Amino acid sequence: MVGLGLIGGSVMRAAATAGHDVFGYNRSVDVVQAARFDGFDVTDNLDEALARAADSTALIVIAVPMPALPRMLERIRAVAPDCPLTDVISVKGGVLEQVKGFGLLERFVGGHPMAGTAHSGWAASDGRLFVGAPWVISVDEHVDVDVWTLVMDLALSCQAVVVPARSDEHDAAAASISHLPHLLAESLALTASEVPLAFALAAGSFRDGTRVAGTAPSLVRAMCEANADELLPLLDRTLTQLKDARDGLAAQGSVAELVEAGHAARMRYESFSRPDIIATVIGADNWRDELAAAGRAGGVIRSALPVLGNRG
Amino acid sequence: MVGLGLIGGSVMRAAATAGHDVFGYNRSVDVVQAARFDGFDVTDNLDEALARAADSTALIVIAVPMPALPRMLERIRAVAPDCPLTDVISVKGGVLEQVKGFGLLERFVGGHPMAGTAHSGWAASDGRLFVGAPWVISVDEHVDVDVWTLVMDLALSCQAVVVPARSDEHDAAAASISHLPHLLAESLALTASEVPLAFALAAGSFRDGTRVAGTAPSLVRAMCEANADELLPLLDRTLTQLKDARDGLAAQGSVAELVEAGHAARMRYESFSRPDIIATVIGADNWRDELAAAGRAGGVIRSALPVLGNRG
Repeated sequence: MVGLGLIGGSVMRAAATAGHDVFGYNRSVDVVQAARFDGFDVTDNLDEALARAADSTALIVIAVPMPALPRMLERIRAVAPDCPLTDVISVKGGVLEQVKGFGLLERFVGGHPMAGTAHSGWAASDGRLFVGAPWVISVDEHVDVDVWTLVMDLALSCQAVVVPARSDEHDAAAASISHLPHLLAESLALTASEVPLAFALAAGSFRDGTRVAGTAPSLVRAMCEANADELLPLLDRTLTQLKDARDGLAAQGSVAELVEAGHAARMRYESFSRPDIIATVIGADNWRDELAAAGRAGGVIRSALPVLGNRG
Repeated sequence: MVGLGLIGGSVMRAAATAGHDVFGYNRSVDVVQAARFDGFDVTDNLDEALARAADSTALIVIAVPMPALPRMLERIRAVAPDCPLTDVISVKGGVLEQVKGFGLLERFVGGHPMAGTAHSGWAASDGRLFVGAPWVISVDEHVDVDVWTLVMDLALSCQAVVVPARSDEHDAAAASISHLPHLLAESLALTASEVPLAFALAAGSFRDGTRVAGTAPSLVRAMCEANADELLPLLDRTLTQLKDARDGLAAQGSVAELVEAGHAARMRYESFSRPDIIATVIGADNWRDELAAAGRAGGVIRSALPVLGNRG
């Protein structure tokens, strides 16, 4: 584990509970001490951790914020270039570009566990954070069968459900169901804060609608800004919808169009089915395309798929 | 109880549990049968219910949607004009206007329990719906001491906390913490529904951010459209904030301004204190202004205030 914040720390806890031999790095001495106190094998010396990974060809899981990624990749290239490599960063296209830039693409399979809380850091980490949560594993053209299988096993060990997806499709979806909601929550909190009596009356719809505005601004900025290309068209879409609703309310006293379409969309979400993906054999012809299509249709992997050859 | 939907039904259940003698009306025979089956004294004959209220000078609680209000007020004026009167409709200014129009202002004190679920109707009603929820009771210039005290007692019987507020201030606050969140949730659900893979990856921030889009469109429309005057300026405010964030993201790659201001607002909300209002005597000089100021500052009534004279 490279990075022991909320996600990295939670992966470490869950993987250890599942019986994996796991060790980690964090740049902060305080975090390292806290993790050691909790019984984990961690260090603040990155090269030492990477050398150890190289010795055992361990799966390296990068769990640092996007801005710290280049430095990590530079050290991985120098010390542990042959290790299988994944990450848990919320934007996949940008990570893929950087990994490619450092020549580490061959052993890399991007990942993104879709779980979180409004809290952050090792202190908030929780080995049960991923139970039942979608964990995206990229099925881009280049991905290697063995590394993919390792990452799938890690996600299933954390009791997540695996959603196979292309990196670009992941990023557009993440913008719509994570980054856009964060910006709407920020705007809602800000708008209400300027109205006397608002906080005094706030109940469920405000509390739920602004919950993610409690997330540290640095994390929200990192997610949204790293995914600007996908987020911008969705922001435009929402702005148009809200502007049309505003104009309809002013002119005809009606918000019918938005309310009915939004309700219908939420109903589709509530009845969205999550069939198990069981028929695909990892490594078989077109396995990547097959998994990408299954993920798009709502399919999830709940138990390890067979791998072409002698495993599974 | 005039109307036995989610809110009216829940008030009836809670009031009965608290020992009040309660009877009700609903226009639907099906609802009346369901409520009778659950042991309640209800009828689908409005005039009959109102005549009974008039006989005992019972507190009439109007719990019908806004569009049905005029017909109810017309029958109340005809059959039970001297009964104390309150309501649980989510917009207070519009109700006040109509009550005034029917000449029923003298015995009227508006109310709004700020609780709800994404479900509606008698079947969803729950006697514990209001436990700990803010229940606004209007302290407009005209309100009568005795009626105000009756409504306060009803709200406290339902285990709500009473927030005294002027009708106009209530409506602006409700627009910011209820009506605007509903429209943002609708837009979020709609935008995401158009992105492949979005529902497959949806997790907490999407689920929370769109929860209220599950509310019946007719209810959302009724709330928003009846409060258009207060909602429009807030929609404009949110549109400006989101447009600025969009432009900042496109030009400088930054959403810092919105994210930091939104986070600070949510932090203020989380630390907003709810002091008990205990010092005001209902009916004393300036009691209405005093309660309005206390409510604005976050104050709530958790146990019955004394009333000038011999009660309390």
